[in-house]
Amino acid sequence: MAVKKVFLGEEFMPRQWYNLNADFPSPMPPPLHPGTGKPPTPEDFAPIFPMNLVEQEMTGERWVSIPDEVLGIYKIWRPSPLYRADRLEQALGCPVKIFFKHEGVSPPGSHKPNTAVPQAYYNKIFGVKRITTETGAGQWGSALAFACQLFGLECKVFMVRISFEQKPYRRLMMMTWGADCVPSPTDTTEAGRKILAKDPNSPGSLGIAISEALEMAVQREDTRYSLGSVLNHVMLHQTVIGLEAKKQLEALGVYPDVVIGCAGGGSNFAGTAFPFIADKISGREVRIVATEPTSCPTMTRGPYAYDFGDTNQTTPLLPMYTLGHDFIPAPIHAGGLRYHGMSPMVSHGVKTGLIEAQAVDQIATFEAGITFARTEGFIPAPETNHAIATVIAEARRAKEEGKEKVILFNWSGHGLVDLAAYDAYLSGRLTSYSLPDDEIERALKAIEGLPKIA
Amino acid sequence: MAVKKVFLGEEFMPRQWYNLNADFPSPMPPPLHPGTGKPPTPEDFAPIFPMNLVEQEMTGERWVSIPDEVLGIYKIWRPSPLYRADRLEQALGCPVKIFFKHEGVSPPGSHKPNTAVPQAYYNKIFGVKRITTETGAGQWGSALAFACQLFGLECKVFMVRISFEQKPYRRLMMMTWGADCVPSPTDTTEAGRKILAKDPNSPGSLGIAISEALEMAVQREDTRYSLGSVLNHVMLHQTVIGLEAKKQLEALGVYPDVVIGCAGGGSNFAGTAFPFIADKISGREVRIVATEPTSCPTMTRGPYAYDFGDTNQTTPLLPMYTLGHDFIPAPIHAGGLRYHGMSPMVSHGVKTGLIEAQAVDQIATFEAGITFARTEGFIPAPETNHAIATVIAEARRAKEEGKEKVILFNWSGHGLVDLAAYDAYLSGRLTSYSLPDDEIERALKAIEGLPKIA
Repeated sequence: MAVKKVFLGEEFMPRQWYNLNADFPSPMPPPLHPGTGKPPTPEDFAPIFPMNLVEQEMTGERWVSIPDEVLGIYKIWRPSPLYRADRLEQALGCPVKIFFKHEGVSPPGSHKPNTAVPQAYYNKIFGVKRITTETGAGQWGSALAFACQLFGLECKVFMVRISFEQKPYRRLMMMTWGADCVPSPTDTTEAGRKILAKDPNSPGSLGIAISEALEMAVQREDTRYSLGSVLNHVMLHQTVIGLEAKKQLEALGVYPDVVIGCAGGGSNFAGTAFPFIADKISGREVRIVATEPTSCPTMTRGPYAYDFGDTNQTTPLLPMYTLGHDFIPAPIHAGGLRYHGMSPMVSHGVKTGLIEAQAVDQIATFEAGITFARTEGFIPAPETNHAIATVIAEARRAKEEGKEKVILFNWSGHGLVDLAAYDAYLSGRLTSYSLPDDEIERALKAIEGLPKIA
Repeated sequence: MAVKKVFLGEEFMPRQWYNLNADFPSPMPPPLHPGTGKPPTPEDFAPIFPMNLVEQEMTGERWVSIPDEVLGIYKIWRPSPLYRADRLEQALGCPVKIFFKHEGVSPPGSHKPNTAVPQAYYNKIFGVKRITTETGAGQWGSALAFACQLFGLECKVFMVRISFEQKPYRRLMMMTWGADCVPSPTDTTEAGRKILAKDPNSPGSLGIAISEALEMAVQREDTRYSLGSVLNHVMLHQTVIGLEAKKQLEALGVYPDVVIGCAGGGSNFAGTAFPFIADKISGREVRIVATEPTSCPTMTRGPYAYDFGDTNQTTPLLPMYTLGHDFIPAPIHAGGLRYHGMSPMVSHGVKTGLIEAQAVDQIATFEAGITFARTEGFIPAPETNHAIATVIAEARRAKEEGKEKVILFNWSGHGLVDLAAYDAYLSGRLTSYSLPDDEIERALKAIEGLPKIA
């Protein structure tokens, strides 16, 4: 019988995270302090992040050791299985072998705890007692709630009010793990009160929620803030995905021709792809593809420019593909891909030609997700469906070109608490989104006065 | 670093199911045809089940081969991991080693596909095109929808109307896997129309839904009915759980002092426990404990008697612990444990002293579930919380007695689509249920005229 999945024993878990910043052929442009126009110092970050994470954010070391305490928690679901999608292959009838890394096996059901756990750990040993964060659909908030609970930290999550009301299940996951999850805007922060004064019924936004979480973090000495994507140390932590996948594919004697991931802030994509990009830089032939939604086409239609990470312009300026910090993406079901920018590391990879970017409409992504669920069984998250749509397109291309191909993609999480989205698709209520040029132009006015990347 | 979980390679998957009926020291009493008062013949079952499953229901063979096509689907999630609950052990501070079999890794999130897959397979090769079934909370319906999709069968699920409305997520899982899930009672069957004529707003019941599914199954030659628990062949299929667990514990060099599972119809409990009961019959010292809810105390407060499997008295008479086929359990969140009877095989085990039965109140089960989620990470299903409550009680007893103990239990499924129940518990809205003696006496009137077990 053909092998369906490859597990690695816990003794083969990676002991170090991989840092692509050590290997980029040309270095990334630095972030800039919006006030001074110069790269921020570690001290600039001190009120927000614990210093051990700030050091990781800035390190140029190729390998960063994973602490034993983090490995001890990783073992709950890692190494995650690598699957052969043979039933999907048969349904497609294309000359491809498709493998996927199943990150849905973690307790919160996605790749997010790969970074939530080390972030909670580093905060804990730095003496932090409470972590604040924001969350949209709730994948990140639930992962951080889980991690904080295991390390005995308080966790305060500002959840965008409209998601808080529409997506009760991820909020309940956070409660079950002991986190305090509140609908943002709240009247407990100045940022929140300012919004509520203007609009008492504000549905909230990720930008507002970030502002509330940041404000609360800097108020108390025992509190820090945590971010679930975009930053370098988040990309670093996620590389366990790709490092494991390489070992697992090696055990099967295969190497991928194409590596695919969906990208919102960039973390699950980076975690899967960066260890393979290291090979590509060393001369190995491998294509690396990042898929984003057509409704939020950061990499495919945005400029590579300095921009703020949040709507309220409180973060350092980051060098990234961006649609402008004022850009409000359409309400697609893949909430994790609704971000105006893209991780600076992923952006640098795209800019330097290491990474190809593609955009897919949400109707096509759910068609792909249904095909996957009905062949492989597991129901993917709406975000993951973007990667699957690209996998299916690559498989069909292989057939047209008459070439055999090995495809690896990251199955970033399950869709069991996103089933309302499938309901919308199956009953024909799902909307397609195309974004007119003038809307992008309008949004990009927000970055007109900012420094340009040299 | 201590081992957290044990995977078996797919090559170590059991190739045969284990049939406890070959080893019971005294044979089970037979089922009885309600009309003739004699054991039913295979032909009596022919309109309802395909003959290959009827043969399995009646077989006395100790080992039954698992077809390659079933193994091919089992591989999607089997062998399931065996976990060491070391973080729970530390929190309890008792002299125990706790292991659990994680059945939540299947696509529908529970142990149910262990039997849904072979049932779909045997129906398929028998020439059946469509399977009907009923479901309460939706665990079984979603498992059968998944299995039917993979074998290209139509699946029609009658879901108790009140659950259909209150628990949309499992219904959406069924839709995603292509099943037709309708709220019962419907106007498409005589049984449904009869109920609707009396009460157009009937909330439905499992008994009504079974009647509808049975009626539709016997109407068409290409259709059969499928049941997710209670019957012998269902217990048989579930033994992959215990067979794998034995190999995994063996790899760690341990054998359990106690094996624990929750029991509604009995299938996840039987699947875990029966391979260990075989050892017990051979003289090995091991305690086997089945946990049920205090609100539906079949084994702990019901008589061992012949009774119908359904409310409408359409099934053969089964020898089992029962509260009477009219008994309507309180609306606890563990919907999978709300059944008036108990699998004849499990009942026979209890009657002959091989199995101990315990009952736990739902408040205690959610307290246990929260303790588990906050130590081990994974959020258990409300049903699974019953097993966990017993595990914790056993651990505390070990401490009182000053004895070291190895405990194995079955983590039958995750609670990600049952989070509303956790919300009710955490916000103090959960109800405790004690069942007055006279209520049981009243319910047992339903079996007064039926034949007695010799």
